[in-house]
Amino acid sequence: MGVLTVERKILQKNDVIAAENRAMFLQLGLFTINLLSSPGSGKTSLVEKTIEVLKEKVNMAVIEGDVQTDLDARRIEKLGVPVIQIVTNGGCHLEANLVHESFKNLIADHLQFLIIENVGNLVCPASYDLGEDCKVVLVSTTEGDDKPLKYPAMFIKAKVMIINKIDLVPYVNCKPDVIEQNALSINPDLKIFRTSCTTGEGIQEWCGWINSNLRVR
Amino acid sequence: MGVLTVERKILQKNDVIAAENRAMFLQLGLFTINLLSSPGSGKTSLVEKTIEVLKEKVNMAVIEGDVQTDLDARRIEKLGVPVIQIVTNGGCHLEANLVHESFKNLIADHLQFLIIENVGNLVCPASYDLGEDCKVVLVSTTEGDDKPLKYPAMFIKAKVMIINKIDLVPYVNCKPDVIEQNALSINPDLKIFRTSCTTGEGIQEWCGWINSNLRVR
Repeated sequence: MGVLTVERKILQKNDVIAAENRAMFLQLGLFTINLLSSPGSGKTSLVEKTIEVLKEKVNMAVIEGDVQTDLDARRIEKLGVPVIQIVTNGGCHLEANLVHESFKNLIADHLQFLIIENVGNLVCPASYDLGEDCKVVLVSTTEGDDKPLKYPAMFIKAKVMIINKIDLVPYVNCKPDVIEQNALSINPDLKIFRTSCTTGEGIQEWCGWINSNLRVR
Repeated sequence: MGVLTVERKILQKNDVIAAENRAMFLQLGLFTINLLSSPGSGKTSLVEKTIEVLKEKVNMAVIEGDVQTDLDARRIEKLGVPVIQIVTNGGCHLEANLVHESFKNLIADHLQFLIIENVGNLVCPASYDLGEDCKVVLVSTTEGDDKPLKYPAMFIKAKVMIINKIDLVPYVNCKPDVIEQNALSINPDLKIFRTSCTTGEGIQEWCGWINSNLRVR
């Protein structure tokens, strides 16, 4: 068995715009998260559940990133929260300038909380700072427990990991404890939640964490 | 709700090397597939099951692509099949030159069948021809039935779609018929299999298709 390795290039221009976004969000008193995962891990379902819990008390908005379609933004729009869809037309990640441009079009006063749901991709979005307060990586139990080891960049850069689809553990070959161990071996400071958007498990704890991070104005 | 779209760039240099690979594989009488999916859809499990069924009758080898770790190659090595691990160190897809270089190191005589397991990513690898005979896209039932619509490039370029984890349908909000409809609306020529690496459902049909595509020498 041979092993071949490749160097990767790093993009810098994006970081300048990301810093501008971060300054703008801070000035507005906005808490922002960049929600990341593979396709189908349940990002949009988690956003829906989060909105259901928080929307009466928290002024929030959503930026949806997708390669194609506005299916996700339509799901969010039904819940009565301001939403902008970014369609990347094949692009594999959001970039800071896309967030900057779309935020201008987001008509929302006195915003407290912004969720940026990135393109479903456990690799590329890790390299692109959008100006968020923190990255939140979602991993579902159906994906196996080795994902933090195989896609480490995302788990190194995230502040929070959510283990989703916890209700499916009885049916799949996955141990949430092993996901946690693997993730913590890469990033010992990760805050971890276990959730199910089907049963509602863990959603209150997750929303409590968001609440505790909102900026006082 | 606003919609913002972005143009994408297309890479060409890769296509030249891919064409060289394709000529080489053809000259060697090798049937090659490029296996693609999100992280955790079950690519490596499917490769394992395929090896178990075919290895006594078919000379086969595997090239494993991963962002980090050689966990997948170690799984394949246990089954006694030649395997090379490509570690991309953060790179989100395999490129034709990586396949070219790694194939040189693959010590395997009279090869008939080569599986290239790409990096887990439903976006970027669609843009990179490796010189394979066909792309096979795997989608698991736990990812929801909208994936062909949201990540169309992969389903347009694939010749075969495998709906994996079919045993989990009773536990998830996913209709395999809808995945099929969505995929066929994008690519009416897709050959479709439904498999479970847990129960073995559909594995014989999939391996039968491979057998029927091996080159006569």
